[in-house]
Order: sequence, then structure tokens, then C-alpha cells
Amino acid sequence: MIIDCHGHFTTVPASFRNWRAKQVEYANDPANGPKREDAFVSDDEIREAIGNGQLRLQRERGSDLTLFSPIAGLMSHHLGNERTSLEWAQISNDLVHRVTQLYPDNFAPVCQLPQSPGAAPANSVPELRRCVEELGFVGCNLNPDPSGGYWTGRPMSDREWYPLYEAMVELDVPAMIHVAASCNPCHHGTGAHYLNADTSVFMQLLQSNLFKDFPTLRFVIPHGGGAVPYHWGRYRGMSLEMMERPLEGLLNNVFFDTCVYHHPGVELLTKVVPTDNVLFGSEMIGAVRGRDPNTGEYFDDTKKYLDACSALSGEDRYKIYEGNARRVYPRLDARLKARGK
Amino acid sequence: MIIDCHGHFTTVPASFRNWRAKQVEYANDPANGPKREDAFVSDDEIREAIGNGQLRLQRERGSDLTLFSPIAGLMSHHLGNERTSLEWAQISNDLVHRVTQLYPDNFAPVCQLPQSPGAAPANSVPELRRCVEELGFVGCNLNPDPSGGYWTGRPMSDREWYPLYEAMVELDVPAMIHVAASCNPCHHGTGAHYLNADTSVFMQLLQSNLFKDFPTLRFVIPHGGGAVPYHWGRYRGMSLEMMERPLEGLLNNVFFDTCVYHHPGVELLTKVVPTDNVLFGSEMIGAVRGRDPNTGEYFDDTKKYLDACSALSGEDRYKIYEGNARRVYPRLDARLKARGK
Repeated sequence: MIIDCHGHFTTVPASFRNWRAKQVEYANDPANGPKREDAFVSDDEIREAIGNGQLRLQRERGSDLTLFSPIAGLMSHHLGNERTSLEWAQISNDLVHRVTQLYPDNFAPVCQLPQSPGAAPANSVPELRRCVEELGFVGCNLNPDPSGGYWTGRPMSDREWYPLYEAMVELDVPAMIHVAASCNPCHHGTGAHYLNADTSVFMQLLQSNLFKDFPTLRFVIPHGGGAVPYHWGRYRGMSLEMMERPLEGLLNNVFFDTCVYHHPGVELLTKVVPTDNVLFGSEMIGAVRGRDPNTGEYFDDTKKYLDACSALSGEDRYKIYEGNARRVYPRLDARLKARGK
Repeated sequence: MIIDCHGHFTTVPASFRNWRAKQVEYANDPANGPKREDAFVSDDEIREAIGNGQLRLQRERGSDLTLFSPIAGLMSHHLGNERTSLEWAQISNDLVHRVTQLYPDNFAPVCQLPQSPGAAPANSVPELRRCVEELGFVGCNLNPDPSGGYWTGRPMSDREWYPLYEAMVELDVPAMIHVAASCNPCHHGTGAHYLNADTSVFMQLLQSNLFKDFPTLRFVIPHGGGAVPYHWGRYRGMSLEMMERPLEGLLNNVFFDTCVYHHPGVELLTKVVPTDNVLFGSEMIGAVRGRDPNTGEYFDDTKKYLDACSALSGEDRYKIYEGNARRVYPRLDARLKARGK
């Protein structure tokens, strides 16, 4: 089967986005803010949004199951406060859970965390536990910059993150490193902040000993790893010089998706990063929704680019399309096996 | 001939670095700060630093001339104040000028600007003019984030930059977009901040109409363009969607160097970016100084990676190694012609 490790519920009804806007507006006046029940999205609305969106594209493009999480940009941890972040995470995760109940063969849930600038990452543990233990989520998205593009917090190797990592290890769920919207005019969200975050966090991991403390902690770096595979030689050299160890030591814990929207990029990724560390992903329907006028194909139809990588063996393709996702997300594997897959 | 468009005087004597540290320490107490003349570096010290460093490597690796500028990290515009930034730019540029006087066939000068957080970019114009008009500099390094990794300023499409662009256009000099050190613990300097800046600025240009206002303004984006060529399809799609124009419209004004430290990266760069927009660069002696244990070669010997790109024609190689640099830096071309080259 073909597992897409990177999808967000980007096609939510406008009412859902409007609810969030109001919630933020009344962040410090909750008595007059919108009521939780008004964020409700009906089954029909979900079927409309998914059926004409991600589900249709799964079928057209030939993938089987998407790891599905709330919209990344709409996590907007920099807005509101810790209370609104928690309420919004719960509402967003519950909605994603309902998608995966309506379409259990097509979507498996990944949760948003109730992060907020300055809030202790430990405070995200209860929502992570609720999602994984009560609702069957298989992973989480972890925002390395809740400040939304100003990076006023601490690197992900800092001990303030450790309580969250302890819970992830105990629950055996990985995190996709994924920032939300950028409120910094210097950094466009999907055009700069997303890729920069991937690059910065990889470097934070390179220069730390985090995986000595957490040998089974696993991170998926999305968007093809930001700039990292393109600069693989730079990182190999820096790891040897700064840390006196080969870069490849990170590869027990760090994985990359294939959200790179042209063939030469995907080919480079699969050439320089070991096949065991690459997970198929498309992030559809996401940052780039149009078609390449040169080919008529959708930019984010990354399966086409992978299929055209002639150097990949059948075994490589199995790993990238299915095997690695089952290994990195063991709760996904268990969920699939429980459904006879 | 082979022109390396990206080199910094990274091998300055320790005394020069120490002077800067003291200058910053006494930034608000200049009467007790170090005297300008104490920053002096002798000709013998220059010969020692360059002769055993960049000049030796030029000869060993087979390049002829390097566009040479002050150390990027040591520009540290975020430290001190506008007064110290100006003094330090003058001192650093004068030192680079002396290098190019001692070795006129091997180095051509590129200047540092006296930027400072919150200071108007217009204030950098006098030092740019001094360097270009009085000392024969052929280009400048322009820091898009004088805050050193917090990005508290404005995008490079903002009108506050226009007086500087007007001077660049009048003087017919390009700028290499180059941040200095990062003081943000989330962003390692050469491992994250440098590449992120390249990516963010490219996106700032993509989403603006800057080159309508300045059709002859030219930027070189270093480090192979950060994440950009690896994500060329993403940017092609975003340009079509957001701006309703092809990405390739930027290519009259935006150029990339080849500071990518492995063969697959350089091959991707030369495959997706038109040959007219790629300038040979190595940034030696810089971020990655060691050898690849797999090959025994230096990571930053980027000429080897280019030479191994079998798809490049002789004409392509001429452009990348020489022709594009002469075209993007017309004052370099004039300087070379004046020396019969």
C-alpha cells in the first residue's frame, strides 16, 4: 500500500476558520468569545470537504492512506494564549479524529499540540496523551517555534522539551517537526519559514546529544528536510568537525518526507539520504496547488517524481511508500494490522 | 580564467578579531575603547594569512581570482551600535583593499556595509561609495538581517532599502545577500542562519515587485541559494499562484553561487537553474574546512563537483567560471581588462 505521511485538513469549512479568528479576538475576554460547540462541523461538511479534496486526490494519484493532522498554518500558536491554544488543539484534533472515523481506511490521525510562546512544552503532554491513548492518534506535529517566525524560544535540544520527549518515547509516537504560520514579514510562511524551520531544527539536532538521552525518539523533518539534503556535504563536514562523529549517526532518529515539488529535488533526496530514512509525503492539498504548465501535472503530485527515480529498487520503493511509515509510526502499523492490512 | 565569486578574509590575525571584541565591549564608552590604529595588520601578517591560506588553495585547486570580502560572521552588525559598525566596516574594508593591492591578480575587493539594527540602509551609502569610487571595490555584501537571527527588521523589498539600491544601480555594483553571525540559539550561524537567509530573501523577492522599480539591480544569493534550487518546483508553483508570473522572471536580477559541498547538490543546481545564473564560488576558507573521509577531498573544493557535472558544455563552464561573474560584476570585468585579462 501507499502511505502519505504528510497531510493536513486544509479544506475545512470557512465557519471553522472563522471560529478560530473569533476565539483569538476574544482570547482575553473568554466570556464573550465563541462557544466551543459553535466550532461544530457536520458529517456532511466533512464528507464534502474531504470527498472533493484529499480523498479524491488520493484516488486520482494512487495513494491509499494519509497521516492526517490539523492545518499547520491554522495552529498559529503565536496567537491568543495558552488557554486558547489548548481549546483550539482539542477542537482541531477532535475534528481530525472524526475524519478518520468516517474514512478509517484512508486517514490515520496525527495531532496538533497546545503550544504557546513561553509555555512549558510539558503542558502539551496531557493533550498528546488524550489523543494517543483515548482517540488512537499515531503521531504528533511539534512546532519548534511557537513565536511564529521570531524564534524567541529555545532550541529543541533544550531540557525544557524533555518532558514531552519522555511522553513521546513512552507512547512510542514520533513527531513531525512542523511550524505554523509566520507573523514575521521577513519570512513567508510556506515559502520560507517552513523550510527554514526544517533546516534549523536539523542543525539543532546535529549539534546536540539529544539522541544519547532519547535513543528511541523519532522526528520526521518535512518538506524534504528543508535545505538539508541539498547541503548534505555541508552537514557531513560540520558534523565531523564540530561533533567528531559522522552525520549518519542521526539517522536512527531523523527521517525526511518527500514533499519536494519537482523531480530533480526528489531524485537528489533519494540519492543522498539512505532509503530507510525517506517517507513518502505530498502535503496535498497544501502550499502549492497548481499545475506545472510545462507538464500539466500538479506540482504536489510527488508520487510521480518518485516513480520516475529509476535508481530505486522495488525494495527501496516499498520502504519509502509503506515500510518506513510502519516502522517510524508503530501505532499506525498496529492500526493497519488490526484492519487486516 | 576561473573566478571564485565568494571568499572572505577568514584568516585574519587573532589581533584583528581581538580589536573588534574590545571595540564592541567599549561601544558605549568610546573614549576608553581601542584606537583605530591598533587594528593595524602588517603586510607580513597579510602575506602570512593569505599566502598560507586562500592563495595556496587557489593554486592547489586551480582557480585564478577570488572576489574577496571581510569575514561574514565578524561583520556582526547586531553587536555594538551604528558608530562601531561604521568604524568596523571602514577598517575591515581597508584591510581587504590592502589584500587586493598586495595580490591584484588574485583578489578583487567586495565591501562590508555599516549596517546596524534599526539604522536606515541609506546610512550605508557613503561607505559603499567610498569603497567603490575611491578604492575600486566591485561589489558589496548586504545583510538582510542586521539583528543577527531574530529578523526584527523589514523585508528587502521594503522602501527603506531603496536609497541603497539606487546607489548600487548608479554605481553598477551587485550585492551578495549575506548575513553575519547568529546570536539566536535556535539558528546555528553557518549551519542554519546562512541558508535560511538565502531562502527567505529569495522568497521576499518572489513576492515583491522590486525589480520593476530597479530593473538593473542584481543580487547574488550565496550558498547555492539556500534551499531554493532544491525546492525549485515549489517556487515555480508559488510564483505562478501568488504573483501570476513565471519564476524565471526573477532571473535577470538574481544569481546563485555554487557553494554547495557535495556533487549531487551542485549537479541539481546546474540542472534546475539556467547556466546564465550560476557563478562559481567556494567560500573557502569558510564554514566547512575538513576533508570528506570517503574521498579524501576537501568538502569546499566545489570546482571538483562542477568539473564532474558531465551535462555541462564548454560554453556552460565558461559562463559559470568566468563569463557570468564578468557580467554580474561589471567593475570586475573593467578591472580585469585594465590588467589585460
